Amino acid sequence: MSLDQALASARDARERDQAEFFEELRIPSVSTLPDRADDVRHNADWLRRRFDALGFKTSLTDVEGGRHPVLEAEWKGREGAPLLTIYGHYDVQPPDPVEEWESPPFEPTVRDGVVYARGAADNKGNHFAALKAAEHWFRAGGPPVNLRYLIEGEEEISGVSLPRYIRANAERLATDYVLVWDGGFASDGVPSLTSALRGIVYTEIHATGAGTDLHSGGFGGAAPNPLNTLARILGELKDRDGHITVPGFYDGVIPPTEEEKAGWPRGPEYEATVKKIMQSDVFEGEAEYELAERLGARPTLDVNGFLGGFTEEGSKTVIARQAMAKVSMRLVPGQDPARIFDTFAEYVSELSTPGVKVEVRDLGSAPPVVCGIDHPAARAAADAFEKAFNKRAQPRRMGGSIPVAIDFQEALGAPMVISGLGQPGSGAHSPHECFSLDHFHRGIEMLVHFMDGLRTG
Amino acid sequence: MSLDQALASARDARERDQAEFFEELRIPSVSTLPDRADDVRHNADWLRRRFDALGFKTSLTDVEGGRHPVLEAEWKGREGAPLLTIYGHYDVQPPDPVEEWESPPFEPTVRDGVVYARGAADNKGNHFAALKAAEHWFRAGGPPVNLRYLIEGEEEISGVSLPRYIRANAERLATDYVLVWDGGFASDGVPSLTSALRGIVYTEIHATGAGTDLHSGGFGGAAPNPLNTLARILGELKDRDGHITVPGFYDGVIPPTEEEKAGWPRGPEYEATVKKIMQSDVFEGEAEYELAERLGARPTLDVNGFLGGFTEEGSKTVIARQAMAKVSMRLVPGQDPARIFDTFAEYVSELSTPGVKVEVRDLGSAPPVVCGIDHPAARAAADAFEKAFNKRAQPRRMGGSIPVAIDFQEALGAPMVISGLGQPGSGAHSPHECFSLDHFHRGIEMLVHFMDGLRTG
Repeated sequence: MSLDQALASARDARERDQAEFFEELRIPSVSTLPDRADDVRHNADWLRRRFDALGFKTSLTDVEGGRHPVLEAEWKGREGAPLLTIYGHYDVQPPDPVEEWESPPFEPTVRDGVVYARGAADNKGNHFAALKAAEHWFRAGGPPVNLRYLIEGEEEISGVSLPRYIRANAERLATDYVLVWDGGFASDGVPSLTSALRGIVYTEIHATGAGTDLHSGGFGGAAPNPLNTLARILGELKDRDGHITVPGFYDGVIPPTEEEKAGWPRGPEYEATVKKIMQSDVFEGEAEYELAERLGARPTLDVNGFLGGFTEEGSKTVIARQAMAKVSMRLVPGQDPARIFDTFAEYVSELSTPGVKVEVRDLGSAPPVVCGIDHPAARAAADAFEKAFNKRAQPRRMGGSIPVAIDFQEALGAPMVISGLGQPGSGAHSPHECFSLDHFHRGIEMLVHFMDGLRTG
Repeated sequence: MSLDQALASARDARERDQAEFFEELRIPSVSTLPDRADDVRHNADWLRRRFDALGFKTSLTDVEGGRHPVLEAEWKGREGAPLLTIYGHYDVQPPDPVEEWESPPFEPTVRDGVVYARGAADNKGNHFAALKAAEHWFRAGGPPVNLRYLIEGEEEISGVSLPRYIRANAERLATDYVLVWDGGFASDGVPSLTSALRGIVYTEIHATGAGTDLHSGGFGGAAPNPLNTLARILGELKDRDGHITVPGFYDGVIPPTEEEKAGWPRGPEYEATVKKIMQSDVFEGEAEYELAERLGARPTLDVNGFLGGFTEEGSKTVIARQAMAKVSMRLVPGQDPARIFDTFAEYVSELSTPGVKVEVRDLGSAPPVVCGIDHPAARAAADAFEKAFNKRAQPRRMGGSIPVAIDFQEALGAPMVISGLGQPGSGAHSPHECFSLDHFHRGIEMLVHFMDGLRTG
């Protein structure tokens, strides 16, 4: 095996690699649409055949409760070398609104070196480049590390298949490193390495007042009103400066290191970009923290929905007997979801009024994930990015949760790298999703380097 | 004409009066059900024929935009005497849930001196007694005052017919006194006289944050969240002691007089009754005011509905771009709906957060109505109640608005009496609606006295 041979193979095969990539982009593997179930499975089969052809041991597993199979492809031909597990997903978002696409979403079309297609960035460009990196290593005598690909078909529908698959097979799936390969660059030309992901606690509050709906004319002034009370509770969960008032909420929060912060985006241009994406001229929240910290490294609390009383057109003078709200909190490293939920539930009850009973339900939680950026896999990824893109990767904290990252971390416990190849503005989920072909080809080389870098550990 | 003859006629005719009353109760005049439209009209015709037979000049008018006709019956045979206008409605609520009725809702059934039927109390018992009072006066030489009955078919559906009819014919409908005859007793054996009705301002608040729905993982911490902001606004509209915080809200409030308060219900039994009706063990609101004052004579603010974000089952980590709430305020004499709306709208905007725009819409308002209890008609009603029921009427403030009372007050400007014959627990709108036959017969006598009392003014 030879790194130079693998890189040369990748450079020589650009045209073919791109053509094959477009082949996958033509498969409308929209996981949420029942009509597309055959296409989703076709995509899984299509990928499986490619892994088979390279000599991987493959399986396609339908998991109970799931809708689309988990593709596992494993090659353990390098005895004594570490095992790298690479995560990706072969399903895509629906292309709606279709009329906003300049070219049809499942006919990959190149404009200015960028291919436009649903799934180009999220996640076909990423996982197909990872498959290609293995292929070029096979042309150069075989990969320097053992490889396992876990590619699911339910990422866009938050399916249960892969999480269950990982937890059910945790022992067999033991691995040395995990690459969660479903992200993108920090800014133009600058790769990213995620140092931590926020966790989440998602709750539902039910507030109940009188035993029946009441007329506000006859009973207003003395009747408990669960809508007023619930609004008060929600309103008091944060102060006007964006600080969450749940007692002890911030206890244990591990602030980002100077090293992490050094590479963060900041400045007017960055802020303008975020405002443009948000379609808002104003940021709210904790003004004493810089924007990147608020978006990724600070815990948050948002009301995600509320419903109560009369909401049709017109007026009805009802004091409803009950109301409901959904409230979620994003947690950062150092915060424990179970403790936060308990404190939150107690605090919400305390904020209620004498005539209103509140019940707080736990709709699910995920702990924050600390990947770190000072383990061998993270260093190998940073070096590989530098070699392929001539730029060090920027550490960043991601504001969202990647549920499967938690399954990997909890079930397998291996050091994890979370990153990806999408260029800024790749428009995942939007009607102009696209993927830079330069990123695609350099990305294959980056992954070739990454596998090489892991060999030495 | 002779009062004694009229009273004797009423006493002699009890059996026939009751039989005719039951005849009306058998007409299923449910105004909200299109299938019952013929029955509703039949009820109107049935009443009209009775007024015709007494020598009234009658008309049945379909008003544009309405569904059921307005019945007007006028007798102006007493030259020089004052004109009394009596309001009632011939439509009834649907009988649902039908299975909870002990006897069929449109087959009047007497148990323990009480007739059970839909519409018995609300409002057939009232307006039919008023018709009968006129009839007995005719048997005694003719009523001592001129009479006009306005009986509508859309009270239970808040229809536009009668309000439009009154306002379009205000000049012709000029009157000396108005009797809004659609209420009931204050407590067992104790008639009521309404001294004031609360008014209302009904608003809808629309809060808008970013230009698009956002992912709480990616943008939580900096994105404006209109749900959090709207909840905060709603929560801050009242303090924890039930005081409304809208600036100047209580300015001008005319407190009830000692005379009004003297007759108010109070004490543990009254409170227990209200709690039972409310199905709540707890009263909220302004603890420094007694219950009857809070329910009828204090202004209130209630959130009647709210809706925003994700409200289906499960969790969605969305920061929605907009949210909505309906908020209404009950106003008392001395408060001006237009001023309150303006102050409220401005205050709500001030309570918002920098990234959230709020728009406050006026969904309609009605001024509070002061009937007073120290004008000749109120005194005549109190005297008549005392003669027929051996009990002075208790003044009370009603918490709800009777929209047509405002139309009467604004368009006709005559002194108004708001009262009625329903016994406590008559269960208007409920599946055990019933009407005391003793109240029916004494009520006819009360109305005979009332007409006599008005003669002398």
